[in-house]
Amino acid sequence: MAAIKVHGNVISTAAMRVFATLYEKDIEFELVPIDMRAGEHKKEPFISLNPFGQVPAFEDGDLKLFESRAITQYIAHEYADKGTPLVIRDSKKMAIISLWSEVEAQKFDPAATKLTYELAIKPMFKMTTDAAVVEENEAKLAVVLDVYETRLAQSKYLAGESFTLADLHHLPTIHYLMGTQSKKLFESRPHVLAWVVDITARPAWNKVVAQQK
Amino acid sequence: MAAIKVHGNVISTAAMRVFATLYEKDIEFELVPIDMRAGEHKKEPFISLNPFGQVPAFEDGDLKLFESRAITQYIAHEYADKGTPLVIRDSKKMAIISLWSEVEAQKFDPAATKLTYELAIKPMFKMTTDAAVVEENEAKLAVVLDVYETRLAQSKYLAGESFTLADLHHLPTIHYLMGTQSKKLFESRPHVLAWVVDITARPAWNKVVAQQK
Repeated sequence: MAAIKVHGNVISTAAMRVFATLYEKDIEFELVPIDMRAGEHKKEPFISLNPFGQVPAFEDGDLKLFESRAITQYIAHEYADKGTPLVIRDSKKMAIISLWSEVEAQKFDPAATKLTYELAIKPMFKMTTDAAVVEENEAKLAVVLDVYETRLAQSKYLAGESFTLADLHHLPTIHYLMGTQSKKLFESRPHVLAWVVDITARPAWNKVVAQQK
Repeated sequence: MAAIKVHGNVISTAAMRVFATLYEKDIEFELVPIDMRAGEHKKEPFISLNPFGQVPAFEDGDLKLFESRAITQYIAHEYADKGTPLVIRDSKKMAIISLWSEVEAQKFDPAATKLTYELAIKPMFKMTTDAAVVEENEAKLAVVLDVYETRLAQSKYLAGESFTLADLHHLPTIHYLMGTQSKKLFESRPHVLAWVVDITARPAWNKVVAQQK
């Protein structure tokens, strides 16, 4: 029995963020599937793991966590010496990772998540896409990606010359959006595109995608 | 000349989060006022400090940061031995602080910020409050505060028995909301109310509020 359990499912962007971190760290884990169509995430026993009723929830022995970005940070720090280094202990370099992680969470993710829902998740469940929501959020995402284009002209990754959690957190929504009309937002910005090609080619990420097949 | 500069203004919730952290740490800083009514945050030289054109921006010597929660994390770690300890180095305890910091950023803040804007900031500038937005976001905040009520029945602060960044990050929006009709959401939950009374009474926080006078 693995010490680490991820309660969730393979199509959830938040769960994918955690899987990617575990694969980068080469850490074994058990996926405990949560049937969201049956509403298992809104009932016990899941609700005791995450009172907000959202996947994923995470266990490492006695430690129980939720919120995907708190889980990835924990894994990156607790297993700092395993697999890919995803954080840097120097406090000034760590601050730059935090900065771009916050940009992902506060600026990139709100627009990217709404676009993912409209253009990838809704079609998967035969629901109707709202064109006005798409237009509004593509405009918001374009503003964010203009900042990324400038940043990624200065350094290969968001927080500097190495791949860190700040990059990794973007992978799930980028994965979905590159299969939709919104891919134009990434393809029209050369440094953003090179970054997308680089980070989506990572072997750990490809294991996350393979789980969906 | 202080090594640390905060570019912002005394009424911005994001800037107040940074001021509170600096006062808790007893660190001297220079406030560089940004006149947002004149649009200074959307122009050079500010835009070079934060390409998103939002306050605050932060300098500690050569290090330049934006995103308030990245700044508070940096201060808490870099100046760990000064003033109030706001983080815990043990990775499992740190994970619990991260969890509740993420809950603040992802669940509490979106509703609290919209309510703050409608009920506190708009009246300050003689703009009209949107009652539908208030109703929608009071309902969302109530769901979050139900989770907090359960949590704060188990521990004095969100991440355990000591005040940490996870609590501190809530102070600016709570400060504004306790002066509005939304205070009922806090006052009707006894453990939440005790927590609000406790954290808003901190001397460091009172220095932030005094700056507004």
